[in-house]
Amino acid sequence: MKVLQLDDLDRAILKLLKEDARLTISEISERLNKPESTIHFRIKKLQERGIIGRYTIILGETLRPKHIAFLILRVEKPVIEDFLERYLEYITKTLAMLPNVLMVAKSEEDKIIALVGDETQEKLEKFIEDNIKTIPTLKEVLVFPVRTFKKGGEIIGFLAGI
Amino acid sequence: MKVLQLDDLDRAILKLLKEDARLTISEISERLNKPESTIHFRIKKLQERGIIGRYTIILGETLRPKHIAFLILRVEKPVIEDFLERYLEYITKTLAMLPNVLMVAKSEEDKIIALVGDETQEKLEKFIEDNIKTIPTLKEVLVFPVRTFKKGGEIIGFLAGI
Repeated sequence: MKVLQLDDLDRAILKLLKEDARLTISEISERLNKPESTIHFRIKKLQERGIIGRYTIILGETLRPKHIAFLILRVEKPVIEDFLERYLEYITKTLAMLPNVLMVAKSEEDKIIALVGDETQEKLEKFIEDNIKTIPTLKEVLVFPVRTFKKGGEIIGFLAGI
Repeated sequence: MKVLQLDDLDRAILKLLKEDARLTISEISERLNKPESTIHFRIKKLQERGIIGRYTIILGETLRPKHIAFLILRVEKPVIEDFLERYLEYITKTLAMLPNVLMVAKSEEDKIIALVGDETQEKLEKFIEDNIKTIPTLKEVLVFPVRTFKKGGEIIGFLAGI
């Protein structure tokens, strides 16, 4: 899938750091059976090349919003077609500022995708009613609540605010 | 939003670690103007309480799939109603194993949400045609390509495989 020059050692290092970014050079060196100097050099290179973007923490279950939904929003088609991009810009900007909005993206044409969350089902529904459905120029809000994640559910611990 | 006992210092530490999990105790101590022993103790507690779930890396732009889409999938309603959950389980499990599927979740009733990505638009479309639309018991696949992220776009660097 990738055209980049990454060899097996680079990939092995990245995999270990993805699992636990606190691993020391010496621990990685031991696990991969390579000299510390090599590991040190490789990590430095991976950082310099921007392959490792940054180091972060994933919040545990306790701080993650318990109720999550994906939203597909549709914006009114403006009379002047050029205004559609302005509407999309306004709405995505407004959404991005709300702490309950974990993710927001422009999709094709008049569509916006968002990920929202709150502590309870009631609060989440109220948030969608009061803060999303009331946004001017918004025509339609489709709500897809998440029942269970099968893969990638940790994004909530990554996106959740503190 | 949270009912947990976290004070301002805990939150300040979490925010710093979220931005850069490589910060040392001594750097955090300096930035927040608190003794190192306090910072050390607080981080230990945050880990023990599971508030810090784990430490990880976010891959930079180079390793992230460039073309991303959210999918809303609908499963055929089986004659025997109890089979719906089995269908959902089968499809989400199948999807979770595919490296191009970054995230997959069961939504309400007959619906599944997925996030897919690939290097090029053509490859992504081919993946959806060949590997998703061909899954048995799948009735409908709605594709919402991501044009631009306004918030939370880093999930791609978090979810991307190595």
